[in-house]
Amino acid sequence: MDHVRSAAVNFLVPAGCVYDPPDQLGLVSIFSDMITRGAGDRDSRALSLAMDSLGLDHSESVGQLHLRFWGSTLARNIPPALEIFADILRRPHLPAEELDAVKALALQDLQALEDEPRAKAMVELRRRFWPAPLGQDRRGTEESIGQITSTSIRAFHAARFGPKGIILAVAGNMDWRPLRDQVEKLFSDWRGVSTPPPELLPPLKGHAHLPKDTTQTQIVIAYPSVPFGDPDYYAALGAVQVLSGGMGARLFTEVREKRGLCYAVSANYQTFKQVAGVLCYAGTTTERAQETLDVTIGELKRLIDGVSEEEVQRVRAGLKSAVIMQEESTSSRAGALASDWYYLGRVRATDEIQHAIDALSPRSILNHVKKYPPKDFTIVTLGKNPLQMPV
Amino acid sequence: MDHVRSAAVNFLVPAGCVYDPPDQLGLVSIFSDMITRGAGDRDSRALSLAMDSLGLDHSESVGQLHLRFWGSTLARNIPPALEIFADILRRPHLPAEELDAVKALALQDLQALEDEPRAKAMVELRRRFWPAPLGQDRRGTEESIGQITSTSIRAFHAARFGPKGIILAVAGNMDWRPLRDQVEKLFSDWRGVSTPPPELLPPLKGHAHLPKDTTQTQIVIAYPSVPFGDPDYYAALGAVQVLSGGMGARLFTEVREKRGLCYAVSANYQTFKQVAGVLCYAGTTTERAQETLDVTIGELKRLIDGVSEEEVQRVRAGLKSAVIMQEESTSSRAGALASDWYYLGRVRATDEIQHAIDALSPRSILNHVKKYPPKDFTIVTLGKNPLQMPV
Repeated sequence: MDHVRSAAVNFLVPAGCVYDPPDQLGLVSIFSDMITRGAGDRDSRALSLAMDSLGLDHSESVGQLHLRFWGSTLARNIPPALEIFADILRRPHLPAEELDAVKALALQDLQALEDEPRAKAMVELRRRFWPAPLGQDRRGTEESIGQITSTSIRAFHAARFGPKGIILAVAGNMDWRPLRDQVEKLFSDWRGVSTPPPELLPPLKGHAHLPKDTTQTQIVIAYPSVPFGDPDYYAALGAVQVLSGGMGARLFTEVREKRGLCYAVSANYQTFKQVAGVLCYAGTTTERAQETLDVTIGELKRLIDGVSEEEVQRVRAGLKSAVIMQEESTSSRAGALASDWYYLGRVRATDEIQHAIDALSPRSILNHVKKYPPKDFTIVTLGKNPLQMPV
Repeated sequence: MDHVRSAAVNFLVPAGCVYDPPDQLGLVSIFSDMITRGAGDRDSRALSLAMDSLGLDHSESVGQLHLRFWGSTLARNIPPALEIFADILRRPHLPAEELDAVKALALQDLQALEDEPRAKAMVELRRRFWPAPLGQDRRGTEESIGQITSTSIRAFHAARFGPKGIILAVAGNMDWRPLRDQVEKLFSDWRGVSTPPPELLPPLKGHAHLPKDTTQTQIVIAYPSVPFGDPDYYAALGAVQVLSGGMGARLFTEVREKRGLCYAVSANYQTFKQVAGVLCYAGTTTERAQETLDVTIGELKRLIDGVSEEEVQRVRAGLKSAVIMQEESTSSRAGALASDWYYLGRVRATDEIQHAIDALSPRSILNHVKKYPPKDFTIVTLGKNPLQMPV
């Protein structure tokens, strides 16, 4: 990306929260907070000074399968930033004396969930919908956090941090050869084993109501879709966009615009390698919750009746515009590179994506929906009263 | 911006929620939802189709002084998008038959605030801290929403929408001359009066506790700063960055890293033309709330003891990196152009901003803090128990 001055770095380390020891759920979250508290020759304070002095905006985020290290700054500061990342990944101090403070934070994070009805409902939806442990919450439990020790934190680093399976993507105004040489220098002598992710168990699914004395009722719904990389992938994305891509999309029009049932209503496609789903959200008043659920489910089911050329035209325009936007941001680009590499083992060219979007038609989307009709809904509600579930 | 394919449009219309009629608070929010429901020759459905078909990502957001219309898409789609924006601004249908659905949504939005403790505390802080009506909440009240009629919505459009005081910024791969010609064609025959914003009343300030049976206690704090455009502006920004810019910043280090008091702690600079402030947030457990408040206030007051060269080095790097990032995004750039024009009546060059950041020093920041020491704190807490306020 010759015409920008910034660059972004994205490491995916196969050390997400599915690798939490079953009696120490929450370990990866705690580990992710510990790992930047000193590394290589720098203690915690020196490390944060070094990163801040490079103008490095960075985050460490815990996904289900990956721990993601992201950083973005001026392109010329990326080489020293990569040295720091190498220290963090390979030589973190994981200082035992700071574990209590980090555990206190983790407990806070867990407690805060009780004050966030939407997130709370989503945690329960994921737990039910995804094959375990993919739906496991990164926060753990009060009891499991109590079990985490400095020894287990160190053991986790030893077991999960090695070169195997780590993906590094860099996007921005960078030359390939010096970048490759530096990465080789920083990481080529790294040794380590790699263990596969845990076996998946059949999902729990079903319906649940979480009683809570809130003014709003939170409704979250999930149903299966096809994973990224599947021949039906773009059609699946198209179907979700018909529901929830832009102002004229069905959920927005039917639930919000026409009936005024709720401000926020949306459907999102989410994927793992083997499984994928569409996760929907609506938040509304207690009084209108039943109608909101019924109308939303009705719209999901109505996909099977077909989509119009006009709708597909909107979907194509929206998806193509999003691809262009993403291409212009170094951070988005670094994210997309890493994601493509993980799911496909290669990086898609923009042209390839645009052609696939152009090929979307009412027929291709309908064919997909007929093969994978929205049904078998996992539903979680949170609020004063339980709702009547669809048959 | 020759090297991108996208462009972003940003209209600031002087029609923010301070112009809500006192007995119809919430009117501007409702108006902002009505204004895209048909315009010019297109009814609501045709308008949303037209926008979606251009791949136009857009939003209408209600600020205190401005109603902001933002849109972003492929640069080549900007001319037809501007035609649509001209219809929306000048010829909205504001269909009376949809007002009930929109009012229902506005009531939901108001009720949802009860389930969002952080936002709820912030609404009360703003109400107390800013000179009225700058701290007025855009959501209104149940009673005031009930007073809003189709007639008042139309009267608002007639009174507040005219060419005077509207700022339009466009950033992206666009040529100046055809853009200027199109804007002239679309808007030059527009006539309308302009009334100044309401007079400001002295702020309420003080301390308040909002009792609520939550697991966390929300703490929000504000103190005065200098407005954007003031000679001290960059030093003020530097002081806030010392508190809350990056990992090594004081609030993050002292409140989160060392003591594990809370996950989220931050300070943000906010400005109007005549007044500005620093607004701080911390969310923590009931048990640790008092300590969190005390430590946070302690850090704010400690600014007067001076900042180190090391801290200023971090601040400069962070601010400069942020400027570069902003420069590369068409949306951020369109936002910054409009903001500069509103506050300064001109657009700052990147060099000017960078020089001002380079000129930051421990002395310049300390001089500012001595002139405007953090004090006279407006504090709002929300949670189980009230806290002891600082003297």
